[in-house]
Amino acid sequence: MRAGEDKLVERIVEALAPKGGPNLALGAGDDAALLRPRPGYETILTCDWFLEGSHFLRGEHPPDSIGWKCLARAVSDIAAMGGQPKCFLLSLALPQSLTGRWLRQFLAGLRRAARRFGCPLAGGDTTRRDEILTSVTAIGEVRAGEAIQRSGAKAGDLIFVTGRLGEAELGLRSLRSGRTLKGQGDLSIKKHLYPEPRLALGHWLARKRVATAMMDLSDGLSSDLSRLCAASRVGARIAIGKIPKVKVRQRIAPKGPDATVLALHGGDDYELLFTVRPSRAQGLPAAFEGVPLTCIGEITRERRLLRVGPGEREETLAVRGWDPFRRRK
Amino acid sequence: MRAGEDKLVERIVEALAPKGGPNLALGAGDDAALLRPRPGYETILTCDWFLEGSHFLRGEHPPDSIGWKCLARAVSDIAAMGGQPKCFLLSLALPQSLTGRWLRQFLAGLRRAARRFGCPLAGGDTTRRDEILTSVTAIGEVRAGEAIQRSGAKAGDLIFVTGRLGEAELGLRSLRSGRTLKGQGDLSIKKHLYPEPRLALGHWLARKRVATAMMDLSDGLSSDLSRLCAASRVGARIAIGKIPKVKVRQRIAPKGPDATVLALHGGDDYELLFTVRPSRAQGLPAAFEGVPLTCIGEITRERRLLRVGPGEREETLAVRGWDPFRRRK
Repeated sequence: MRAGEDKLVERIVEALAPKGGPNLALGAGDDAALLRPRPGYETILTCDWFLEGSHFLRGEHPPDSIGWKCLARAVSDIAAMGGQPKCFLLSLALPQSLTGRWLRQFLAGLRRAARRFGCPLAGGDTTRRDEILTSVTAIGEVRAGEAIQRSGAKAGDLIFVTGRLGEAELGLRSLRSGRTLKGQGDLSIKKHLYPEPRLALGHWLARKRVATAMMDLSDGLSSDLSRLCAASRVGARIAIGKIPKVKVRQRIAPKGPDATVLALHGGDDYELLFTVRPSRAQGLPAAFEGVPLTCIGEITRERRLLRVGPGEREETLAVRGWDPFRRRK
Repeated sequence: MRAGEDKLVERIVEALAPKGGPNLALGAGDDAALLRPRPGYETILTCDWFLEGSHFLRGEHPPDSIGWKCLARAVSDIAAMGGQPKCFLLSLALPQSLTGRWLRQFLAGLRRAARRFGCPLAGGDTTRRDEILTSVTAIGEVRAGEAIQRSGAKAGDLIFVTGRLGEAELGLRSLRSGRTLKGQGDLSIKKHLYPEPRLALGHWLARKRVATAMMDLSDGLSSDLSRLCAASRVGARIAIGKIPKVKVRQRIAPKGPDATVLALHGGDDYELLFTVRPSRAQGLPAAFEGVPLTCIGEITRERRLLRVGPGEREETLAVRGWDPFRRRK
């Protein structure tokens, strides 16, 4: 009685969906999932494409990293609101020829991510397609009134980022130049393949009401900072020398890319960008659970993006992060 | 300061997102949307692919019908749970060349659907792609404990369907044979292009606690009935003569398809399939807001799908609805 798609759905559900759970009244397998919202909480909703050819390459990206990353990207938006993940929906399209080993490895990576982020599968949709397409909807929760938006930055607020920027972009370049993760312990490749959304930190910033505005760095600092400033109707001045940059080792890249360019415009880091009133910034730790927090500049009333340095030279910050409608693939 | 993708997002948000609303604490434009759940309600979550080449053809399907239908498909799953829509997320990928007139018409159809279904845009993701890809996540609500699942059918329950089955499949065939909607008033083409999810009826069945199990008919009666039976661990016996079938007019299709085949296996009708205890079936109206409700058979303990007739002949019902992993495109 069961047909091809139903069997596939069964395999996905077996790999990813828990049998019931505290949040889910009904999980994958019916027309829709049913979520029990907690009183006093708001529901966070976000979705992200992750497409072969646009965001990953079948021949270069291990299937388990595609599984991990399609969820990590969406969950990072929940971290950026200061929320906690509850569950996700998976829209998956793939060729018949990949429903064997490729799919098993994809699901293994996705399962690891789902466990790591505390975010079980609640439902989804599958279909056949020549190319691998995924769209993940992540659902989270946050105490009512505690979500941190992009629009709350005020002139004088200090601008912070987490981690080291440009690392994932360097990892992508290393990968495309033929290096692989295996046996090399290359942190930048690991960061490109298996990004870690800053869930604990984002949640802590929301609970402590430290951040006035926040977003995740997915397209590159220059693009994402310009979005935060546009939403808050402010500008920003950042000090190039203060930006925590990826270390470009000469051994790896003798004629390699410039660390500042990577840090300003490289995508896929999934670090957090947030603003803090100066009076609150004093109390911020230098690192949170091993992740450095670095002040890189300040919000300005004048709606321009400025970079300062090297030296004291001040110039306009070019917005050159990832934009699918501006760049050629 | 703003880049190509941001401009596109602005246009989509302007076309589709209301300025605030009773359900949304924060809509499109931030990292994620924020939904305020109503006390005493559960949240319904569902997503659906709608992909060029797989589900529609760029040259044959008007852009506004693609906009309408991508949302209608997802909202139909909310109807099938007995719920009411609250908002949706749109994942949209399209070629640069379609960001003008095509996108305007697509958004116009989507806006009409969003208003009709009471389901505003809450967020989404966009990217560039050679083919048009959409994945819609629809979010709904239902009073806690009132959602109607697929798994509640019991032996002896009567099986009902809404509307006339096979209509959308006939519409697809008419469209592909070169007929167009314009000037023809062809109801089957209209049903194929602009399906109407049975929201009011689904909600009424849930509120009155009439249906023991329910799902929407998206892949065809034979496939979807087999899924309902599998979820409920029962079988079914349906009478071919009782199924409300599309009228195949000889003028349109002199050597046209068989109405029974269309009604049993044709997809995309988005009617409801539901089961009712015999004691409750007496009180059901013959139609609800103009949509006929028809009893087509009964649930059996024995886990087989049987069709009865023509005559009294009883045979196995073949499961031959839409399945992307079984059929060639």
